[in-house]
Formats: sequence, C-alpha cells, structure tokens
Amino acid sequence: MIVLKLGGSVITDKSTPETVDEPALERAATALAAAREREVVVVHGAGSFGHRHAAAHGVTPTEGTHDPEALWEVHDAMRRLNDRVTGAFRAAGLAPAPVHPFSLCHRDAAGALTLPVGGIATTLAEGFVPVLHGDGVVHRDRGVTILSGDELVVRLARDLGADRVGLCSTVPGVLRDGEVIGRIDALSEVSDVLDGAEGVDVTGGMAGKVDSLLGLGAPGRVFGPDALEAFLDGEPVGTLVDGRED
Amino acid sequence: MIVLKLGGSVITDKSTPETVDEPALERAATALAAAREREVVVVHGAGSFGHRHAAAHGVTPTEGTHDPEALWEVHDAMRRLNDRVTGAFRAAGLAPAPVHPFSLCHRDAAGALTLPVGGIATTLAEGFVPVLHGDGVVHRDRGVTILSGDELVVRLARDLGADRVGLCSTVPGVLRDGEVIGRIDALSEVSDVLDGAEGVDVTGGMAGKVDSLLGLGAPGRVFGPDALEAFLDGEPVGTLVDGRED
Repeated sequence: MIVLKLGGSVITDKSTPETVDEPALERAATALAAAREREVVVVHGAGSFGHRHAAAHGVTPTEGTHDPEALWEVHDAMRRLNDRVTGAFRAAGLAPAPVHPFSLCHRDAAGALTLPVGGIATTLAEGFVPVLHGDGVVHRDRGVTILSGDELVVRLARDLGADRVGLCSTVPGVLRDGEVIGRIDALSEVSDVLDGAEGVDVTGGMAGKVDSLLGLGAPGRVFGPDALEAFLDGEPVGTLVDGRED
Repeated sequence: MIVLKLGGSVITDKSTPETVDEPALERAATALAAAREREVVVVHGAGSFGHRHAAAHGVTPTEGTHDPEALWEVHDAMRRLNDRVTGAFRAAGLAPAPVHPFSLCHRDAAGALTLPVGGIATTLAEGFVPVLHGDGVVHRDRGVTILSGDELVVRLARDLGADRVGLCSTVPGVLRDGEVIGRIDALSEVSDVLDGAEGVDVTGGMAGKVDSLLGLGAPGRVFGPDALEAFLDGEPVGTLVDGRED
C-alpha cells in the first residue's frame, strides 16, 4: 500500500489565489489511473487555496482560532480544492473517496493528533482511493489549528502500515547543485542543501518533508510530476529518503 | 449536553428537489442562538437533498454501491445542504463546525457502525456546535451504504452521554386523533397510531424514530419547529419518549 502526497504547488498555480493547474492535475490523475498499483491513499496540499486564508486569520499548526468564519474559510477552500481533485480522478476512471480531515481528526491540549484510520482502511479494501487534504483541525484549548498534508502523510503511513511513501513535488527530487541526490539516510547528509528551504509555506518546506520521511519506518521518495506513474510502479525515481536502520 | 435532530422535512421543501426552506432554517438557527443551553450537537436529515440521489442509485442503509459517481452525488448533495445549515447558523451568531459522517464513520461486514466521537467532544469543548448529517458511509463488502441522521442521533447520544435528545419534526409530537401524546414508555402503547407511519423515506419514519428514542438511555422528545427554543431551555414540549426503567 502506498501513501502519496500530491504537493499543493503541483496541482495549483501558487501565484494566483484558488487556481487549479488543470493540465497538471489531469496528468496526475491519468498517471494514477494507469499505474498497476491500486492501493493508494492520496493526500494533497493546499497550494493557492488554503494558505492565504490561514495566513489572513493567523492560523498555523500551533496558533488557533475560535472564529467560525475563519474555520469556514480555511475548511471550505480546502474542500473546494479536494472537490476538484476527486472530480479529475473520477474523470480519469478512478474511484476517489473524499475524506475531510476536519471531520475525522482532533488534537489534544498538547497538540497530539488523533487520526482514526479504520474508515480509510475499509475505504481502500472496498476499492476506493481515499483522498485527504491539509485542513483545519479542532485543537483542545486552541480552537482550530492547521493540520498539514505532510503531517497527515506521516501518520497515515505509520498507522496504515504503508509499504512506500511518495512526495510528488514540483522538483524531480532533493537537489544539490541542480542534480538529484539519489539517496538520503540522515538529515545531516543534506543540511547544506536544505538550509533556507524552510518557511516557504506555513506548514514546512523541503527540510521538514525530508525529516518527516526519515522518521517513517518505510522508504520514501521525493520526485517530480513526470515520475509519478513510474513511482507507483515501483521504479527508483527521484530521491530515496530512508531513515530505517540497515 | 443535548443531541438535536433537525428533520429534513423541517429545513427543506421535500416536494421540490434540493430546495431549502429558508425561513424555517432561519427560525431554527435563531432559536438555537437564543437558547440558554450552549452544548448542542446538531444532526440534520436529508429532506429533498439526499433521498432522491440514494433512490436513483438504489443505495439504502443495507444496499451499497461501488460506483464513485453514486457516492459523489449522495455525499455532495448532503454536504451542500450542510453548507446551507452551517451558513444559516453563522448568520445567526452561532459557531457551527461542519462534520461530514462519510469522512468519520465506517461499517464492518455485519453493518456495525464505527463512529469515533473524540473529535466531536473536543469540538463541543471548544465552544463550537458540531453539525452532522445523514450521509453515505463506507461499508465492508458492500461499498457505500446510507447512514441516516436518526442512526447518528442514537449513537451520538449514547457515546457522548447526552442528557437529552430532541427530534424537531414537522409535527408538534407523536399524534393520536390529532392530539399530541404526552408520554410514551413503550412502543406497544402507540402501535395503533404508528402503524403505516414507516416507509415515508428510505431511512425510517416515526415508528423507527420512537423505537430508537426508547432505546437511548436518555429522555427524548418529539416536537415541532415552534417548540425548538423551549425544548432547548428544558421545557416539557411535545411527546416525551422515555424507555428507561423507572
């Protein structure tokens, strides 16, 4: 079973508010439909949909809101992007099942996430492709905070026992001097190229993604949109990120 | 804490597809906003939104579908009605939190429902009003079946330990010869008036509702829209349905 993150910058035009990159989304849907691997959980990022609403209301993974309008704007924007993704998936012949994390998850006062995966496992078993997304999440004592797609990927991979994890990004892998790094076993190996990569969005840049993948307990790959079908078919594309002990 | 069912026929025009009864919805929102009781979980029915899609695809609480278009049509229609309900609640000054049961729940092969309530409890604790609805639900070996608002009410009341349960219907209570029955302790007391009341929609009529309330472990009341605020404030409106042993 594969957990696949479709980066928000892959499927949206990040420079224009709430704009889907239709050709890119269609290509991703076509690649998923063509792949031999059928057991895939998809998580997509916010791109130009969620971040601006979160920023406008000062909501982050740790700073919350009790304003029902703020909750609505963040959640509705992400749901509308999710609708576009599941619509493209159906048009490509897939059987997507929309799963809205705000309805499913919550955090305790310490920020620990509860994410029940029984429904997602049943959804997979019935032949559907669960499609989740970055979203708001109810957070004890803080109202509603942000739950990023990257945090979802890590939890789903662990709790569903994923065989492989893929991060489909706008770049063909983690780069050093323009070249794709083939393999990363520890963050220290790549601290030179990841410095300054954080802070691109409110939910963490490439350094955070690599760090998360290293802690998975399953091999992860960072790759570009052109390599999506090959990744699903098990080919060694992009950068392998594997923090497991040999 | 109160679990309140807003009947689909209260907030929609059941005779016209996908038509909200705006004045009725606004009155309900105003009553909720005016009530002293703040801890309320709201579940609304499908009315003219969900039933026709479910019927068109032959989906019921036991007959499922693996068709992604059928899943989408049922879920999207109910989500659009939920958007209207939460929008009216915000306009009335409430802080609604939309909770989509398709994202939260699943059934096993025997039809048993898993409904994690930790997020709903946290949502209440943070001062929001969770607003759920009848929806599709992933069902092991059957694809997607229907999860009715009435089934949700029973489970939420039990698992959240509700103090009281209210069913806001289009009638002022369970009626005998046009008069509201004050109290029902067993289904056998009212079998004369409930005969033939079932089958009005795919998810059970008044007999099913009364039977469910009798099994709750908490007092339930069936009442009309005009009595909503009084019910929330603890007044003895409509029909008391109480199956608890004395």
